[in-house]
Amino acid sequence: MNFGVIINVLGHLLVVEAGLMIPSLLVALYYGSYDWKAILLSIIMTGSIGFMMSRIFKYNGDIQSKEGLAIVGFGWILVSIFGALPFIFSDTIPSWVDAFFETVSGFTTTGASIVDDIESFPKGVLFWRSFTHWIGGMGILVFTVALLPMLGIGGFQIYKTESPGPTPDRIVPRVRDTAKILYTIYTVITVVEIVLLVLGGMPLYDSVLHTFGTVGTGGFGIKANSIGYYQSTYIHLVIAIFMTLSGINFSLYYLLVKGKWREVIRNSELKFYLGTILLSVILIALNIYRPMKYSNFGTALRDSFFQTSSIITTTGYGTVDFDKWPTFSKLILFALMFIGGCAGSTAGGIKNIRIIILLKSIKRELYRILHPRAVIPIKIDGKVISSNTVAGISSFFALFILVFIVSTMIVSLDEVDFESATSAVAATLGNIGPAFGFAGPSRSYSGFSTLSKMVMTVCMLLGRLEIFSLMILFNPSIWKYEGFSKKNNHH
Amino acid sequence: MNFGVIINVLGHLLVVEAGLMIPSLLVALYYGSYDWKAILLSIIMTGSIGFMMSRIFKYNGDIQSKEGLAIVGFGWILVSIFGALPFIFSDTIPSWVDAFFETVSGFTTTGASIVDDIESFPKGVLFWRSFTHWIGGMGILVFTVALLPMLGIGGFQIYKTESPGPTPDRIVPRVRDTAKILYTIYTVITVVEIVLLVLGGMPLYDSVLHTFGTVGTGGFGIKANSIGYYQSTYIHLVIAIFMTLSGINFSLYYLLVKGKWREVIRNSELKFYLGTILLSVILIALNIYRPMKYSNFGTALRDSFFQTSSIITTTGYGTVDFDKWPTFSKLILFALMFIGGCAGSTAGGIKNIRIIILLKSIKRELYRILHPRAVIPIKIDGKVISSNTVAGISSFFALFILVFIVSTMIVSLDEVDFESATSAVAATLGNIGPAFGFAGPSRSYSGFSTLSKMVMTVCMLLGRLEIFSLMILFNPSIWKYEGFSKKNNHH
Repeated sequence: MNFGVIINVLGHLLVVEAGLMIPSLLVALYYGSYDWKAILLSIIMTGSIGFMMSRIFKYNGDIQSKEGLAIVGFGWILVSIFGALPFIFSDTIPSWVDAFFETVSGFTTTGASIVDDIESFPKGVLFWRSFTHWIGGMGILVFTVALLPMLGIGGFQIYKTESPGPTPDRIVPRVRDTAKILYTIYTVITVVEIVLLVLGGMPLYDSVLHTFGTVGTGGFGIKANSIGYYQSTYIHLVIAIFMTLSGINFSLYYLLVKGKWREVIRNSELKFYLGTILLSVILIALNIYRPMKYSNFGTALRDSFFQTSSIITTTGYGTVDFDKWPTFSKLILFALMFIGGCAGSTAGGIKNIRIIILLKSIKRELYRILHPRAVIPIKIDGKVISSNTVAGISSFFALFILVFIVSTMIVSLDEVDFESATSAVAATLGNIGPAFGFAGPSRSYSGFSTLSKMVMTVCMLLGRLEIFSLMILFNPSIWKYEGFSKKNNHH
Repeated sequence: MNFGVIINVLGHLLVVEAGLMIPSLLVALYYGSYDWKAILLSIIMTGSIGFMMSRIFKYNGDIQSKEGLAIVGFGWILVSIFGALPFIFSDTIPSWVDAFFETVSGFTTTGASIVDDIESFPKGVLFWRSFTHWIGGMGILVFTVALLPMLGIGGFQIYKTESPGPTPDRIVPRVRDTAKILYTIYTVITVVEIVLLVLGGMPLYDSVLHTFGTVGTGGFGIKANSIGYYQSTYIHLVIAIFMTLSGINFSLYYLLVKGKWREVIRNSELKFYLGTILLSVILIALNIYRPMKYSNFGTALRDSFFQTSSIITTTGYGTVDFDKWPTFSKLILFALMFIGGCAGSTAGGIKNIRIIILLKSIKRELYRILHPRAVIPIKIDGKVISSNTVAGISSFFALFILVFIVSTMIVSLDEVDFESATSAVAATLGNIGPAFGFAGPSRSYSGFSTLSKMVMTVCMLLGRLEIFSLMILFNPSIWKYEGFSKKNNHH
């Protein structure tokens, strides 16, 4: 491993992060809230340490796959450590463990919070908390790749590692251009939603923060009862629709802009994703209509759509306390937590494309029982998926379930009930946020022990980086010192 | 599909079943219990219908893989329908749905019961109920294969389909001999346990029935509080040890008899299975020791060992109400429900060998991230597992989870809580028996709706036949009429 290169890139990353804290400082200054000093101090610390790292260690030589993986893994941890500074310095979240939990929850677009009284937060830090969703959604390293021309080929490895989904592709040949296009689309969607929310009567500050939570599919609320605070069907629908849009592969928007709408409507993953939402919305609406005493079916449909969209996109906003819904509806939401959004979106979870490939592999197996010698490739949108990719997806699924089980066991030592333990881990590993019961939508994660909080912090990172990319840090070969010399990828 | 052959073999199967009902009749006559007429009537009906089926339709031509699969799928359903007759005729379980549930639960060695007052059952029917565990454990079709010389090559297809595990092998070249060896080992283990229980002071009748439940890893109790009725550490330990033994691949016992103990102790699946038990026993004992107020750690260890062995082997006996244990211990038991026993044992679940291969595929994937082009075969005990087998196991795992989720959703419509719905489905799909909460160890499945009972009946069959073998009945090509002509396996 070439540590020099890694520290250099990580230094640049911290400088970028310091820069990304400036809007929060401006917000604090504008509103005259007391936290501007805490944010300024965070900027100075993050920026100067980053600057030193990038100066002392030189960038020489290409980034190989090993270095690319390590940069993403370490990068996310480092950015979360420094991103926690505003909370600690402002004394809004004095505990290191809690502040780290909250920051990881922000960057990983989980939206699980340990804050019990969010409405008392000063405006600058509150802005930073939601802004981490926006940064984390598209990926802070993808952002850095867009800024740093030097990364070159290694940039693709970083992009591939940070992008959600099994086989991310460059939209255009150069990865820097891809990153720029993605961030442009992302910014346009963001601006449109802010405008629509302001038109609906939501204050500008609230609109901006909720939009960060929506398009990043994060879900940090700024009111005790999340979006339920705004009793407006228009606002509920705007956010529900934008959550759904943010769970779609962003490269499809690029195709739309290029006029290739035929490719878009034929996209298997999009059809599966929208079909799953439609089916869930109808089933939940039918299930909650009577027990929750809705006066008309339309309102039940609206709430069902909001919550379905919120959970499948792993956002986690709520308009009602869905923890009180019947078990059937909760189980649908629980299953959606695992499915998640589309590859190449800002959403978490296993991703629809992987679910499709798993279902196709089941179908193939049913055929193979009768025709054991048949060779049947799995195809998506006319393209053959290599058997290695299929095997990788199957292993990913098994590992996801394994991490879920082991983490749930550790969290259950807090003596929370079965439903609370399983759903809290599912909600952090899938980057959703609110769970059922103990960490339900009307409550927070503050009641868990330090051990559980740390386990769930790791779960959020594992979920966002799709497990393998983070687990690679435990591989000894990553830690083999190879100095600063240029190296080839021999094994 | 050659329906003639299938009906002929199924007819023979029913005749065999009628014969297997005779011991129950003798027990009823010996104790002079009122149910002897019901059992006699069942024998006559089952035997005569079976005889007619085997006479009207002729066995001509070989059994191909398609027919083999269909015979196993239909065979299990048919045997369960006729096996329910004693319950219906004796009026002990008057409802058809309930009687079918109970019989499928017996043959699939699940042990989930809809009977609320089992101690009032007449002795003949009670014997039959437990005897279905013994028959189902090793497989009624394997038994039939041992009896019918005519099946020839097709016998292997049947044996392969009915035997649990991904790649069952003949112990000896001829499948009839394999079946005979397996049943001999099974009988020896059965007799030894009966003797040990009688020596421990358990009445002979109770000993025989509990042994059927143990070696078949079924778990039907004959007392309201299962094995907890017998307040004897000796009895608890004998049953716990025999449950553990029955969860081991029976071909290992053959190797032991042949003096090949080196191969046995090197067996990966055995090591994984025993290691999982050891780890679970220690973790649960540590976890229950204080909250359950044990006066000494030894007793906690004993109860932990009994319950761990009971759940991992998917038996389902209980000595204590483990539904009251802390969440951590319950989650371990929940995970063990999915793991299950070893391939080629009488236990259900996913099976240890599949878990090992899934873990190895995860490990391979972690390696592949750094070395994308490496070709790494998965090996078990020095043998390479083909990539088709690995893919099949991955698909099996995904399908198992899918069936689990969909079934849980349907069962949740009964408005039972999250924990009750998930555990009841896990306990039927994994062929365990008692679940948590609503169908916990001190309760029964009688409270579920008819729909839920039917879904869970299907789950038990899917679990026992490892899903694919039963789902094949929904494949249209199975239903294509090909008359009585001999056919080749072209596709």
